[in-house]
Amino acid sequence: MDEFEVIQRYFATGFPARDDVVLGVGDDGALTRLAPGEELVTVSDALVAGTHFPAQLAAGAIAHRALAANLSDLAAMGAGPRWFTLALALPEAKEAWLAAFAAGLRRLADRFGLALIGGDTVRGPLAVTITAMGTVAAGTALRRDGARSGDRIFVTGTPGDAGWAWQAFADGRGLSADDPLYQRFAFPDPRVAEGAALRGIATAAIDLSDGLHVDLARLLAASGVGGEADVDAVPRSAALTERAGETRATELALTGGDDYELCFTIPAEKESALAALAASWPCRLTQIGRVVAEPGLRWRRNGEYLPTPDVSFRHF
Amino acid sequence: MDEFEVIQRYFATGFPARDDVVLGVGDDGALTRLAPGEELVTVSDALVAGTHFPAQLAAGAIAHRALAANLSDLAAMGAGPRWFTLALALPEAKEAWLAAFAAGLRRLADRFGLALIGGDTVRGPLAVTITAMGTVAAGTALRRDGARSGDRIFVTGTPGDAGWAWQAFADGRGLSADDPLYQRFAFPDPRVAEGAALRGIATAAIDLSDGLHVDLARLLAASGVGGEADVDAVPRSAALTERAGETRATELALTGGDDYELCFTIPAEKESALAALAASWPCRLTQIGRVVAEPGLRWRRNGEYLPTPDVSFRHF
Repeated sequence: MDEFEVIQRYFATGFPARDDVVLGVGDDGALTRLAPGEELVTVSDALVAGTHFPAQLAAGAIAHRALAANLSDLAAMGAGPRWFTLALALPEAKEAWLAAFAAGLRRLADRFGLALIGGDTVRGPLAVTITAMGTVAAGTALRRDGARSGDRIFVTGTPGDAGWAWQAFADGRGLSADDPLYQRFAFPDPRVAEGAALRGIATAAIDLSDGLHVDLARLLAASGVGGEADVDAVPRSAALTERAGETRATELALTGGDDYELCFTIPAEKESALAALAASWPCRLTQIGRVVAEPGLRWRRNGEYLPTPDVSFRHF
Repeated sequence: MDEFEVIQRYFATGFPARDDVVLGVGDDGALTRLAPGEELVTVSDALVAGTHFPAQLAAGAIAHRALAANLSDLAAMGAGPRWFTLALALPEAKEAWLAAFAAGLRRLADRFGLALIGGDTVRGPLAVTITAMGTVAAGTALRRDGARSGDRIFVTGTPGDAGWAWQAFADGRGLSADDPLYQRFAFPDPRVAEGAALRGIATAAIDLSDGLHVDLARLLAASGVGGEADVDAVPRSAALTERAGETRATELALTGGDDYELCFTIPAEKESALAALAASWPCRLTQIGRVVAEPGLRWRRNGEYLPTPDVSFRHF
C-alpha cells in the first residue's frame, strides 16, 4: 500500500463535509473560507508513542486522544472547530490498525463537524501530529492573559483521572477497557461547547494538558497575577480516590496531565451567569480559588499554605 | 530545560512579526486574520529522520528542508505564505542543535515573511512536522485538476539533484557541504514567487516531492487527462550528469524525489506570457511535453515510447 492508497482508502472520505471547504484532501494544499469578522484560531498537538501514550493503546483511542488534545486547545480559546490536518507517522501500514485509527478519528470529528482537509502519511516511529483550526468572532477569543485580581478560579471535570491511568501503563499494569479511569485517559471529552459558552464570561482560560498546578500557574503568569487555591476544593472522581487513595488522588489532581479539562477565571459578578450556563453541562464545574495580585500560585488546606506541588517529572 | 523554556528560548521570538497575527506563540492557540475575499491555503508536511533525511544532517538543513517542503506546497497552490506551526519531536533538548535548527528555520521564514504562530515540542524520535498557511484571492488558487488536452507541460529547475544526494546518504557516502547536489538536497529553494506569478496563467500545478513521473502523473490523473513527455527534454544539471552519468541522471530526473520544483500546465496561447514572466526567474524553465486526452503519462525518446519508470521504491 503506498501513501496515496492509504490516504484514499482511510482519510479521503467519510469525514464531515463542510461548505466552507473549497478544496480538501488530495491537492498540494486545502482551500478554506472564513466569513467577514471572523478570526482564525490555529492549534497544534503532537503525540508520540511511548511519550504520550503506550504504543499498544487501541488505535481508535490513539486517534481520539490526538484529536481531543487539539479540540481541547480550541475549547480553551472559545473557538468553534472547523478543519484539521493529520500528520501520521507509522512504522508500517497495517490495514486493521489504520481502519480502527480512521474510525476513531471520524467518530470524534463527526461529533464536532470537523473536516479533515490535509496532512501527510509517512514511515517512521508511531506519532500523530494534528493541527486544528477553528474560528471566533473577532476580539472574542478566550486568552490566558485576561485574569484580574478578585476573579474566581474554576475547573471542569475531575482532574487526575488520566494521570492515574498513564501511571498504570507506565508501571506495566494492564487496564481493562471498561475501567472508568482508562476511559478518561483513552477517550477524553474535550469541553468545546463549554469553552464557546464562556466567551464574554471568562476573563482567561487554559486547558489542562500538563496538570492543574502547572497549567493554572501559566494562566496566572500570563495574566501578570497570582492565585490562591484550596486543595480540598479540587474535585476528584470517586474512581480515582478509591484506586489511588486520598493522598495520591490529591497529588494526581494537581500534577497529573492529559485531563483536557478547562480551567478559567471569571469576575465575581459573573458567578450567577456561569451557574446558569453550567446547569446544563455534562461535566462538574467547581470553584477552587481566587485570583490575587501577588504573583505565584499558592495552595492551601484548612487555611495553611502547602508546599508547591512537585512537577519535576514534566521536564523535557 | 523544560518544553516551555525550549519554546521561549528558541521559538517565541526572532521570527517575522505580522500585522495579521492577533496572538502568536504562547497561548492555547494562535489568532490570525484574513482580509475579505481571501481564501486560506493550508499545507502540511512531516519529515522523519531516517525516512526523509539522515539524522546526522545539519540541524539548520533539517529545519530548512522541513519549512521548504511546506513552502513548496504553498507555491504549487499559488499562495502567498503567511504563518506556520511547528511540531518538533526530539530525543533530547541539546542547546547547540536547537540553536542551529531555530536559526535555519528563521532564515527561511524571514525570506518569505512567515510568522511562527504555534506548535508543540515533544520528546520522541527526531521528526519535524510543519503546517503552513497562506492565502490567495478567492477562486485564483492553482489546483491539480485544471489541465486540458493541448496544454503545454513545464517544469522548473533541474529535477534529480536531490534524489542523487539522498541516494548518496543512503549508500553511506559522505557529502561535502559545498557540493552543489548536497546544497540542492539540504537547502531546496521553494518556487514561491514563481507559483504566485502563475496564477491566471497555469491551468494546473503540482510540486515535485515524490519525483517528476509520479507527481506529473498525479496532476494529469486529477485533471482527467494524460500526457506525452520527452525524456531528453527533461533538464538535468551538469553536476548531476557528471556524477551520475547520463543514464542514471535521466532515471533520477524522472524518479528522484525531494526536488521541490514546480511542474505545471499552461494553454498554448499563454506561452509568450509565460516566457515574459520566466525571463526574470532565477531557475530554469523547460517545456517537457503536452497534455493529451488519453489518460496516462507516456515518456518518449526520438519518437519511441519508453517503459514506465520504476517507482516501486516509493511504497509505504
